[in-house]
Amino acid sequence: MKKILVMLGPNLNMVGTREKNIYGEENADTINQDIKSFAKNAGFECDIFQSNHEGDLIDKIHSTLGVYDGVVLNAGALTHYSYALRDAIASVTAVPFIEVHMSNVHKREEFRHKSVISAVCAGVICGFGKDSYRLGIEALKGLI
Amino acid sequence: MKKILVMLGPNLNMVGTREKNIYGEENADTINQDIKSFAKNAGFECDIFQSNHEGDLIDKIHSTLGVYDGVVLNAGALTHYSYALRDAIASVTAVPFIEVHMSNVHKREEFRHKSVISAVCAGVICGFGKDSYRLGIEALKGLI
Amino acid sequence: MKKILVMLGPNLNMVGTREKNIYGEENADTINQDIKSFAKNAGFECDIFQSNHEGDLIDKIHSTLGVYDGVVLNAGALTHYSYALRDAIASVTAVPFIEVHMSNVHKREEFRHKSVISAVCAGVICGFGKDSYRLGIEALKGLI
Amino acid sequence: MKKILVMLGPNLNMVGTREKNIYGEENADTINQDIKSFAKNAGFECDIFQSNHEGDLIDKIHSTLGVYDGVVLNAGALTHYSYALRDAIASVTAVPFIEVHMSNVHKREEFRHKSVISAVCAGVICGFGKDSYRLGIEALKGLI
Amino acid sequence: MKKILVMLGPNLNMVGTREKNIYGEENADTINQDIKSFAKNAGFECDIFQSNHEGDLIDKIHSTLGVYDGVVLNAGALTHYSYALRDAIASVTAVPFIEVHMSNVHKREEFRHKSVISAVCAGVICGFGKDSYRLGIEALKGLI
Amino acid sequence: MKKILVMLGPNLNMVGTREKNIYGEENADTINQDIKSFAKNAGFECDIFQSNHEGDLIDKIHSTLGVYDGVVLNAGALTHYSYALRDAIASVTAVPFIEVHMSNVHKREEFRHKSVISAVCAGVICGFGKDSYRLGIEALKGLI
Amino acid sequence: MKKILVMLGPNLNMVGTREKNIYGEENADTINQDIKSFAKNAGFECDIFQSNHEGDLIDKIHSTLGVYDGVVLNAGALTHYSYALRDAIASVTAVPFIEVHMSNVHKREEFRHKSVISAVCAGVICGFGKDSYRLGIEALKGLI
Amino acid sequence: MKKILVMLGPNLNMVGTREKNIYGEENADTINQDIKSFAKNAGFECDIFQSNHEGDLIDKIHSTLGVYDGVVLNAGALTHYSYALRDAIASVTAVPFIEVHMSNVHKREEFRHKSVISAVCAGVICGFGKDSYRLGIEALKGLI
Amino acid sequence: MKKILVMLGPNLNMVGTREKNIYGEENADTINQDIKSFAKNAGFECDIFQSNHEGDLIDKIHSTLGVYDGVVLNAGALTHYSYALRDAIASVTAVPFIEVHMSNVHKREEFRHKSVISAVCAGVICGFGKDSYRLGIEALKGLI
Amino acid sequence: MKKILVMLGPNLNMVGTREKNIYGEENADTINQDIKSFAKNAGFECDIFQSNHEGDLIDKIHSTLGVYDGVVLNAGALTHYSYALRDAIASVTAVPFIEVHMSNVHKREEFRHKSVISAVCAGVICGFGKDSYRLGIEALKGLI
Amino acid sequence: MKKILVMLGPNLNMVGTREKNIYGEENADTINQDIKSFAKNAGFECDIFQSNHEGDLIDKIHSTLGVYDGVVLNAGALTHYSYALRDAIASVTAVPFIEVHMSNVHKREEFRHKSVISAVCAGVICGFGKDSYRLGIEALKGLI
Amino acid sequence: MKKILVMLGPNLNMVGTREKNIYGEENADTINQDIKSFAKNAGFECDIFQSNHEGDLIDKIHSTLGVYDGVVLNAGALTHYSYALRDAIASVTAVPFIEVHMSNVHKREEFRHKSVISAVCAGVICGFGKDSYRLGIEALKGLI
Repeated sequence: MKKILVMLGPNLNMVGTREKNIYGEENADTINQDIKSFAKNAGFECDIFQSNHEGDLIDKIHSTLGVYDGVVLNAGALTHYSYALRDAIASVTAVPFIEVHMSNVHKREEFRHKSVISAVCAGVICGFGKDSYRLGIEALKGLI
Repeated sequence: MKKILVMLGPNLNMVGTREKNIYGEENADTINQDIKSFAKNAGFECDIFQSNHEGDLIDKIHSTLGVYDGVVLNAGALTHYSYALRDAIASVTAVPFIEVHMSNVHKREEFRHKSVISAVCAGVICGFGKDSYRLGIEALKGLI
Repeated sequence: MKKILVMLGPNLNMVGTREKNIYGEENADTINQDIKSFAKNAGFECDIFQSNHEGDLIDKIHSTLGVYDGVVLNAGALTHYSYALRDAIASVTAVPFIEVHMSNVHKREEFRHKSVISAVCAGVICGFGKDSYRLGIEALKGLI
Repeated sequence: MKKILVMLGPNLNMVGTREKNIYGEENADTINQDIKSFAKNAGFECDIFQSNHEGDLIDKIHSTLGVYDGVVLNAGALTHYSYALRDAIASVTAVPFIEVHMSNVHKREEFRHKSVISAVCAGVICGFGKDSYRLGIEALKGLI
Repeated sequence: MKKILVMLGPNLNMVGTREKNIYGEENADTINQDIKSFAKNAGFECDIFQSNHEGDLIDKIHSTLGVYDGVVLNAGALTHYSYALRDAIASVTAVPFIEVHMSNVHKREEFRHKSVISAVCAGVICGFGKDSYRLGIEALKGLI
Repeated sequence: MKKILVMLGPNLNMVGTREKNIYGEENADTINQDIKSFAKNAGFECDIFQSNHEGDLIDKIHSTLGVYDGVVLNAGALTHYSYALRDAIASVTAVPFIEVHMSNVHKREEFRHKSVISAVCAGVICGFGKDSYRLGIEALKGLI
Repeated sequence: MKKILVMLGPNLNMVGTREKNIYGEENADTINQDIKSFAKNAGFECDIFQSNHEGDLIDKIHSTLGVYDGVVLNAGALTHYSYALRDAIASVTAVPFIEVHMSNVHKREEFRHKSVISAVCAGVICGFGKDSYRLGIEALKGLI
Repeated sequence: MKKILVMLGPNLNMVGTREKNIYGEENADTINQDIKSFAKNAGFECDIFQSNHEGDLIDKIHSTLGVYDGVVLNAGALTHYSYALRDAIASVTAVPFIEVHMSNVHKREEFRHKSVISAVCAGVICGFGKDSYRLGIEALKGLI
Repeated sequence: MKKILVMLGPNLNMVGTREKNIYGEENADTINQDIKSFAKNAGFECDIFQSNHEGDLIDKIHSTLGVYDGVVLNAGALTHYSYALRDAIASVTAVPFIEVHMSNVHKREEFRHKSVISAVCAGVICGFGKDSYRLGIEALKGLI
Repeated sequence: MKKILVMLGPNLNMVGTREKNIYGEENADTINQDIKSFAKNAGFECDIFQSNHEGDLIDKIHSTLGVYDGVVLNAGALTHYSYALRDAIASVTAVPFIEVHMSNVHKREEFRHKSVISAVCAGVICGFGKDSYRLGIEALKGLI
Repeated sequence: MKKILVMLGPNLNMVGTREKNIYGEENADTINQDIKSFAKNAGFECDIFQSNHEGDLIDKIHSTLGVYDGVVLNAGALTHYSYALRDAIASVTAVPFIEVHMSNVHKREEFRHKSVISAVCAGVICGFGKDSYRLGIEALKGLI
Repeated sequence: MKKILVMLGPNLNMVGTREKNIYGEENADTINQDIKSFAKNAGFECDIFQSNHEGDLIDKIHSTLGVYDGVVLNAGALTHYSYALRDAIASVTAVPFIEVHMSNVHKREEFRHKSVISAVCAGVICGFGKDSYRLGIEALKGLI
C-alpha cells in the first residue's frame, strides 16, 4: 500500500477553529479527518503534518525520501515567498509534490497570485475548499 | 443525470496528432474518449467542444445557460490574453467553470504564468496531463 | 439622411438577458430598440451589428467605407487587447469612430483602464449605461 | 429648474485667446457662451467657474452641496495628479460629476492617458472639442 | 516542385485599397500578384491565404502539415498578442515559418516592437514594403 | 508652555460635515475641539490651521520657525504627491513634524500607500481615527 | 484589568546590547522595563514576547485569542516579507494589532518602506524610538 | 531694452534665510539682488516673482504674453509633478522659458531626476548655485 | 556599378574559427567569401569591414557618405546598447542601412530581443545564418 | 589561533546526499570535512553550523559576538528574501561575514540573481563548488 | 591664464557637415572656432578634443589631471550608457566637468532623458545649440 | 607551468595614482606587483593587461585561446553594460574566466548591482580590495 503525506503550512491549524457556529465542524480537525478518508478511499496510507515553522516544513520534506510515495502540500502564505521551501522540494526530486490551496488564490490579493513553488511541483490545484485535498490525493494516484 | 461540457480552445485538436509513434494513441481523439469515460465514471452526461476560434468559444459559453450544469475549460493560449473569454464566463455566473491545463504552465514560458480567466473560474487544475480533465470533472462533482 | 452604424463586441448580446426580473426590459433587445430611437431622434438612419467574433468585427469595419458616415463602437473586452481591431479602425480613416462603454471602466478592474483603440477613435464616452449610446450618437452629429 | 456647474481647471482660460486668426471666436469667452447655450437647451440653469488654483477648485467643489444638481468638470492637467481634487469630489457624493476633456487625451502624451479622478466621477467624455461640454451636460440629464 | 504558403493576417486585405491615386496599383491585389511572381522566380508553387479571423489562421496553420514545405507569415497586429497563433505555429514544427512585416515595426508605436511569434519562427524580416515578401520567399529557399 | 500647531490639509474640513446622523458630532468642528483638548491635556498651547490650498500650507509651514515647537500634520491627499510640501517641511528642520492620518492608509487605494513626506517627518501615525491626533500630540511630547 | 501583549520580532533582542557606552542603559532589557511601565501607566497588564523565529511568532499570535485584549507588534524585518505573519494576524481578527517601529522606516532603505502587515493591523506608528511602544499602548486604549 | 522675468517657485523664499552663519548673505534677498545685477549686466530689464502657490505661478505665466521677452524659471519641487505648470508654459509659446535649478538635481533624491517641464522649455541649466540664474539669463540672450 | 559595405561588429571575427571540425569551412573567412559572392550575384561591388571597436565602426559609418550606396550591418552585441552607433547611422541618412543577425535573436537571451539601432535602419533581417547576409544584400537591391 | 564559523542555511544538508553514484563522496559530510581542512590549512579553528530554520541561523549569528573572528555564510535560498537574516548580520558589525555560494547563482533562475545580504557582508564569492568555501576562508584571512 | 578642455564625443564631428545649404557654416569646424572664441572671451586658454572612441575619451579624461582647470563635456550618445566614462570623470575629482548638450535632450527620444554622467558632473546645460558651449565655459568661470 | 592573464578594464589604471599620501604605495603599479606575486605563489606564470578601450579588451580576450589557461577579469564599469565583452568571453569557452571586483559592488550605486558578464564567467568574487585578485587566482587553481 502506497503511503502519502499531506503537509499543511502556517495558519492552516486555524481554519474553522474560531467560528464553529458558522462553519460547523469544518475546523482543522474535521478537515484532517476528511483528508484521512479521502486518502483511504484512494487506497493510500496517509500522514498529516502541520507546522507554522518554515524550518520544520523543510526538515519534514527532507525526511520524505524513501518514506512517502508522494506529497500533497498546502504551504499557506509561504507559497508566495519561501524560496527555501522551493529548494527543499527540489532536493527530493524522487518524491512528487502536488501544490494545493483551498481558496482560489487568483480571486484574492495580488500577492497571492504568484507562487514560488509551482515550478518545482508536479501540478497545482486550487479553489475547491477541502475538496482540493481530495483532488490532490486523486492526482497523486495518476503519478505514483 | 447532470450534464457537463468539456471545452477545448485553440490548438488542442493538435495534441498527439502528429507523432503517434511517440505518444501512442494519446492523440486528441483518444483523449476525447478518455474524457467521455471520466465523465461517465463520475456519473455525468458529457459533451466535448473544441474550437480554434475565440468567437465560437464565446458563443458556446453563452449557450451553456440552462443546458449544462458545469464546464471544464482548457482555453489553450487564450488563457493568457482573452479578456473577452473572461467576460463570457462571467456573463453566465449560474454555471461553474473549472480552468484546467494539461501541462504545468508554471514550468513553461513566463507568459503562460498569467491567466486572465482564473479569477472568474471556481478553481484551477494544471500539470497532470489528460488526468487534469479527470480531476476537473471530479471537482465539478463537489460543486454541482 | 446620414447613416450610422452601432457596433457591439463580445458578450454585449448577453446584457440583461438572464435576469429580467432584476433589470426589467433592459436586455440587449430593448437596448437595441433604444439605440434605434436615439439615432432616429438625432436624424440618423442606423444599423446595429453585434458579434462575439473579432474577425467579424474587423470585416464589418472594413465594409463601412462608403456605406456609413460614422460608427459608435462598444468593443467590449476586445477594447483592452485587440490591436487587430485598432488597425482595422485605422484602415478606414474616412469614417469617424466613437468609443463607448456602458460602465465607467475606470471604476472596475485594472485591466479595463487601458484601451488600445482610444488613440484611433475620435473620442471616448463611458459610464452612462445605455445613455452612453445616445451620447455617442449625439457626438457623431458634431463630426459628420 | 435644475442648476448645474461647469468647472474649468488650470489653463482653460487660455484656450483660443492667443490665436484668434486661427481659431476665430473660439476663445474661452465664446466657449463659455456656448456652454451657457448648451445648458439652456438642456433645460438647466448653469454657472461656470474657472480657476488655475487647485485650492480654489477644491473649495468650490465643497460648496456645490445643496447648490448644484450636477457638475461637468474639465480639470485640465490636474486630472493627472491631483489626488486632492479626487478626494474633494469623493467628499460630495450626493452631487454627480462628469469628467470631460476637449481633446482626445489618449492621442496625446503618455502622462495624459491616466486620470486620477475618473474613478470618482459618474462617467468620462473626451475628444469632441467644445462639444464635449454639450455631451457632458446631456449626460447629466440622464443622471439628475 | 516545392509548395509554399503566404499567409496574411488581419487588415492586410485593406493595403492600398483605398487610396489608389497615392499608391497606384499597389493594392492588395497587385501585391498578391507580385507575391505569385516572387514565388515563381524562386521556383516555388505558391498559395496565398488572407483572413481577418484568428481562428481561420490557426485552422490554416494546422492544415499546412504535409501540404506546404514552408510558410511566409505576415500576421498583422495579431503578431503582438496572439499566443494562440504562436502555439499553432509551434504545433507544426515540421513546417518552417518566416515572420515578415512590410513596415519597419521598430519605427512605429511601442506596442509593435514586441512580437509573440518571433521565437517560434525560423527568422524575421521587416521594413522592405512588398519586397519583404520576396525576401521571405528567398529565405525559405535556404531552409527547405 | 510649549506651543504646537496642528495642520490639516485638503478636504479635512469636510470630515463628518455631511452625514451627522451617521457620525454624530464627529464633524470637523468637534474634532477640532477634541484636538484642543488633547493638546491641553498634554500641556501644550495649540493652534489649528486647515486649508485646501497647497500654497497656503507651505506659507504656514515657513512661518512656524520660532513660533511653534512642533507640528502635527495631516496633509490629506497632498501626502501622496506634493514634493513642494515635502521641501517646505525640510526647510524648517528646527521644527519637528509628525505625519498623521485618521484612516489606516494601507487598507485603502494603492496610491495612498506611498507618502512623499514621511522621510522628512520625525515619525508617522495612522489608523486611529481622531485618536491619531492625540497620539501625534503625545509623540511630540517625547520630542520637544 | 485588560491584558495586552507586546511582541518583538527578529533581532530586537539585540537593540542596545552591544554598544552600551553609546546608548547607555537603552538596551533590550531596559526597553522591556520601560514597556512594562508604559503599560502600567496605561492601566494594562502586559506580557512581552520576543523571538527570532517566524514560526514562534505565528504560534504566539494564534494563542492570543481569549488571552490578550490587544497586541503591540514590532515585527522587525519580517514586516517586509512575511505573508505568513500577515495571515496569522488576520486569523485572529477579534484581537486588534498595532504595528510599531522604533525607527522611521521611511528614512531607511527602500525595502523597509513596504510593510506586508499594515493592511491587517488597526494602525501603524513609527519613528519615535522606544516611545513608539508607549504610543502603541496608548493607541490600544482607544480601541479596547 | 528687452524685459525678462525670473520666476521662483515654492520654498525658494527660504533659501539661506535660516542659517546665515553658514551661507553668509546668500539668502533669498541677496540672491534676488544678484539676479538683478546679472540681468542688468546682460542688458535686460528684469522682474522677479516668487510664490509658493502653483495657481499664482500659472496666473503669472499667462500674464507674460506681450509683457516679457523671456522667462528664467526655477519651479522648485513643482518641477517634478506639476503638469498644470507644464501646460501653462506650453500655452504661451511665444515666450521662451529656461528651466534652472541651483543644485545639480541629478545628485539628489531619485524623484528630483525627473522634470515634467523640461520638454516645454527651451533648455535646462542646473548645478551652479546662484550662478544658474546668471547662466539662464545669458542663455536668454541667445534666444531673444 | 553600385558599391556596398558589409559591416561586422564585435566578435564576428570569431564565428566558426575555433571549431572547424564542427562547422567545416564556415568560419569567418569562408563567410566573407560567401558575402563577396552574394554581392557579386546581386550586381554589387562589395567591401567588408569587421571591427571589435565601437569607435572604429562609428568612424567607418561616417566615411560611407559618398562612397557606398548602402550598408548591411551586423553590429553584434553593440546592437543592444550602443546609442553612439545608432547616432552614427542616423548621421548619414543618405545611406540606407540594413540590420542583420545570423541567429534569430528572439530565441535567445532577453537582452538580445531589444535593438537600439532598428529604428534608424531601413529594415531588419534575422535568423537565417549566413543567408541573412545574402538577404540583406538582396534587400538593398530594392532600395538603391 | 583565530576561530571562524562556517554557517550553512536551508537545504545545504542535502547536498550530495541523494546521488552518491553521481557525486561520489561529495555529500554534505565530506564537504564539511573539506571545510575543516580548508580552515586548518588557513590556520583557523573552525566550527560548522547548519540549519534549515531562519530563526536558528539568526540566533547563531547573534551568538558570534566575542566568540568568532569571522564567518563564512552560505545562506541558501534565504539569501534572496530574508531581510531578518540581513538585519542579524548587520547587528554584529564587529564580526566580518563573507557571503558564498557553491553555484554561480547568476547562471540560474532570475530570483537567485538578487541577494538581500550582500550589502551587509564584506564580500561575495560564488561559482566554485566546494572551493567557494576555501576561498571564503582565504578571504577571511585578509580581513581578520 | 586658466586652461580648459572642451571634449566632444561620438558623432559630434558630423554636426553640420552634410547639409551646408541648410546650416550654413555651422558645421563642426565653425562650431570649433566659436568655441575657441567663447573661451577667449571668458579669459581661458582652450583645447578641443573630439573622438568617436569611448576609450580615447577615457584616456583623455585621465590626462586632464594637472593639465586642465576644468572640462566642458558633450559626450554625445555615450551620455546615456557609458558607465566607464562616468567612472573616468569620477576618477579625476580635482577637475570640474560641465555636461552640455546642444539639443534639449528632454524633447527627444525617451532614452536620451537619462544621463549616467550627470551625477558626477558639477552641473548640466542643454538645449541652446552651440550656445550651450558658451554657457558651459561661462559656468566654469564660476567654479575655477 | 600554467599561464594566466589578469585583465583590467577602464579606469583601473587610475587606482591609487592620484592620492599616494592617502593610499601609500597601493596605486596601480604596486597592485600589479602584488598580482604578480599572488600568481607566483599560486604556481602560475602571469601576464597583466589593462586597457580603457572596450575593443582592445575584446581583441585580447579573443587572443587568449591556446595562450592562457585561465583569466581573472576586473572589467570595471564595462561589467554593467558591455554585452560585446560578454560575447567575447562566451566565444572562448575553452578558457575559464573569473569575474572580480575590488569593491563590494552591492554596497554601491544601484547600477553596479547588475553584471552582464557573470553568467558567462565561471564564478564571481568581489569586495576584498586587491585581495580579490589573489582569491581570483586561487579560484583558477581549482579550475585549471
